[in-house]
Amino acid sequence: MSGIERLKGHLVETGGIGRPGSVRVERSDQLSLDIGVTRPTGSKENRQIRDYAVRCMKEAGLRVEFDAVGNIFGRREGSTPGLGSVMCGSHVDSVRNGGMFDGALGVFGAIEAVQRLKEENFENKRPLEVVIFTGEEASAFKQVLLGSSVLTGKVPLEQALDLKDEKGRTLRDALDGMGYRGTSIRRLDDVEFMIEMHIEQGPILYEEGTPIGIVQDITGLAWMLVTITGQENHAGTTPMKMRKDALVAAADVVTFVNKRATEMVEELGSTTVGTVGRLNVFPNGTNIVPGKVELGIDIRDVNRKNMEDLIQITVDFIENLEARYDVTTEIQMPAIHNPVPLSKEVTHVIEDSAKKLGIPSKRMSSGAGHDAQNIAEKIKTGMIFVPSVQGISHSPLEWTEWADAEKGLEVLVETLKSLSKE
Amino acid sequence: MSGIERLKGHLVETGGIGRPGSVRVERSDQLSLDIGVTRPTGSKENRQIRDYAVRCMKEAGLRVEFDAVGNIFGRREGSTPGLGSVMCGSHVDSVRNGGMFDGALGVFGAIEAVQRLKEENFENKRPLEVVIFTGEEASAFKQVLLGSSVLTGKVPLEQALDLKDEKGRTLRDALDGMGYRGTSIRRLDDVEFMIEMHIEQGPILYEEGTPIGIVQDITGLAWMLVTITGQENHAGTTPMKMRKDALVAAADVVTFVNKRATEMVEELGSTTVGTVGRLNVFPNGTNIVPGKVELGIDIRDVNRKNMEDLIQITVDFIENLEARYDVTTEIQMPAIHNPVPLSKEVTHVIEDSAKKLGIPSKRMSSGAGHDAQNIAEKIKTGMIFVPSVQGISHSPLEWTEWADAEKGLEVLVETLKSLSKE
Repeated sequence: MSGIERLKGHLVETGGIGRPGSVRVERSDQLSLDIGVTRPTGSKENRQIRDYAVRCMKEAGLRVEFDAVGNIFGRREGSTPGLGSVMCGSHVDSVRNGGMFDGALGVFGAIEAVQRLKEENFENKRPLEVVIFTGEEASAFKQVLLGSSVLTGKVPLEQALDLKDEKGRTLRDALDGMGYRGTSIRRLDDVEFMIEMHIEQGPILYEEGTPIGIVQDITGLAWMLVTITGQENHAGTTPMKMRKDALVAAADVVTFVNKRATEMVEELGSTTVGTVGRLNVFPNGTNIVPGKVELGIDIRDVNRKNMEDLIQITVDFIENLEARYDVTTEIQMPAIHNPVPLSKEVTHVIEDSAKKLGIPSKRMSSGAGHDAQNIAEKIKTGMIFVPSVQGISHSPLEWTEWADAEKGLEVLVETLKSLSKE
Repeated sequence: MSGIERLKGHLVETGGIGRPGSVRVERSDQLSLDIGVTRPTGSKENRQIRDYAVRCMKEAGLRVEFDAVGNIFGRREGSTPGLGSVMCGSHVDSVRNGGMFDGALGVFGAIEAVQRLKEENFENKRPLEVVIFTGEEASAFKQVLLGSSVLTGKVPLEQALDLKDEKGRTLRDALDGMGYRGTSIRRLDDVEFMIEMHIEQGPILYEEGTPIGIVQDITGLAWMLVTITGQENHAGTTPMKMRKDALVAAADVVTFVNKRATEMVEELGSTTVGTVGRLNVFPNGTNIVPGKVELGIDIRDVNRKNMEDLIQITVDFIENLEARYDVTTEIQMPAIHNPVPLSKEVTHVIEDSAKKLGIPSKRMSSGAGHDAQNIAEKIKTGMIFVPSVQGISHSPLEWTEWADAEKGLEVLVETLKSLSKE
């Protein structure tokens, strides 16, 4: 078997793991909002797909180990002793009620690529390693990128193992329960390159009809939690002039963040996005002038200065609401991550691989976070994106056309060859 | 005892009924957000205050009856046979965690006024009736003005009795449980005038320092429930230009309703108010472009044309959002009540009474609904407002100064004398 067939088989098979009724989906017209995929770290379904992937790794001739945080590594040695390896992979956990491509495409794509090289008797001078990162999604332990954060030393091992899921079970117990808590702490000193294939999770490739995206940088991200406090009052008896309506002030924030981010894109050609995704009104009765509103703002840009500019101008705007509406405001910043540039060298190799295969590609930024952004802080890292139909992800309706998955696989195989041949 | 003391005694005593710890509050500095008053129709506390009021009515020499929907009537006959009565009262049920004046002031003020007339040996030619309406608040059976709606025939008796509270108990069972379901259906054919004293529930009298408001009309009210549907998307990967953000569209509605109502007040000198009091975002995650927003809009004006104009311009504005933001919109109107003018004759009598007593008063509109608006559709009806401190009501912090309550009582006594003496 070759081409897309074997990879498609793996994805269809594992796409039934964690889906109600274990339904196997081969075509997008079989998708339904009722039957998404749920495989949080530590679940029975997470163990099942790990076991499945380990079997596939062994069939591809890989020697399998896992580390103390449950990251799985499958290794094929290289012909030249002493060279750093080429690592390739993604994750197999999922959000709740998500799709069958997010993470799994990168893992089974990597396994298939390595198997292909084996079948072609390709001589890889560098070792090849397939990696499955633990807990990329926050669905179980409320923190993203867990496995890669421990691997790169950003999060201490014991701190990660002590994290609890919503039932109060620690990651330590969850890994023990699955049989995936190893003893060693893996480091990246013997790794030269990392490459992750993933669905775009946005609409750009799909809308443009471009099958391959080459990620140059992963966006910076800031979350702002804003509380606006006015005066709760009777909507019928409080004249317009005498109000301190927290929602009227909050509406200005929604409008401003959207407008300013849009303007920045137009003025600077930037990747800026600004979103008020969460908004809660108190007491939230139709006949009560809102006394308090909480907003959750998400600001991202691959350019750190743009991100910081949008944060600052938004903070200024919110503080000015106090005088305009006689309200009080409070701003918290629970998360701020700087943008991460990926390796120019790996980007070139991916680009050349696509060109050699005659597959159209474009350089782009990733607006979502990935394990690759952690790894990129330590070693030369690249990412290959394939189109998400209508840009949908983290949804049961998430889909990538098989023809696009195949192009992604071909570019990945070619890239692994280039990176490992010397 | 005379003056305010006996009325104050009743309000302090009944203000402990339905308040945690039965705490008795005599001064505003004893108020606390933790200890509001809760006496929904059918509750033990609602029965307790009804029993208390009935005892007071009997002490004031009134003959007490109640009708099939639990409205209580206490009657003192007049000296001239065949004249229609003067009815006076309000309600004793409360919102959840509300205040001790809303409703109770009008009931115990009426009882005190009639007792005063008795003690003064005043000859009332017309019969005097103190009325306590069932279920003015929606706190138990989700519909306001229940007792007065049945009394005036707007709501059929059986339909009202079949209403269920959130525990599934019918109003019929709730009245039986309290011992307040009578057999007769009361009509208003033998009533000539109705007068209700109430706290303003708004800030106008308090801010101006005017102790008496004479209500000329009760506001019209329309509720609009609006659903805006866009496209839920990843906040990081969806470029600004490709979004259908339901919250950005909804923010425009919040801004528009507030701005347009304010402009109408400025341009027309009207009583217009427009409020978005309720707003729910779906799925409401900081990193998700909102796919759906529901809004609850409250529009009021004592001028029917103004109210209809604001409704229409708001509907037009919302429908235009579809083209501007590529969203879909849906508008429901679950409630629309026309403005109700009160009796010019009764308004004059109240005004003359205040003038005679040397108490400043002003004509005004009521922005809240009252049982008086139902009664006004059948017979000549007036309302006396007293100031709410800082305009607060439906809150544990609701307060009216005793000096203002006393002025309200004095005007009520004088008004009852004028209306009943011939």
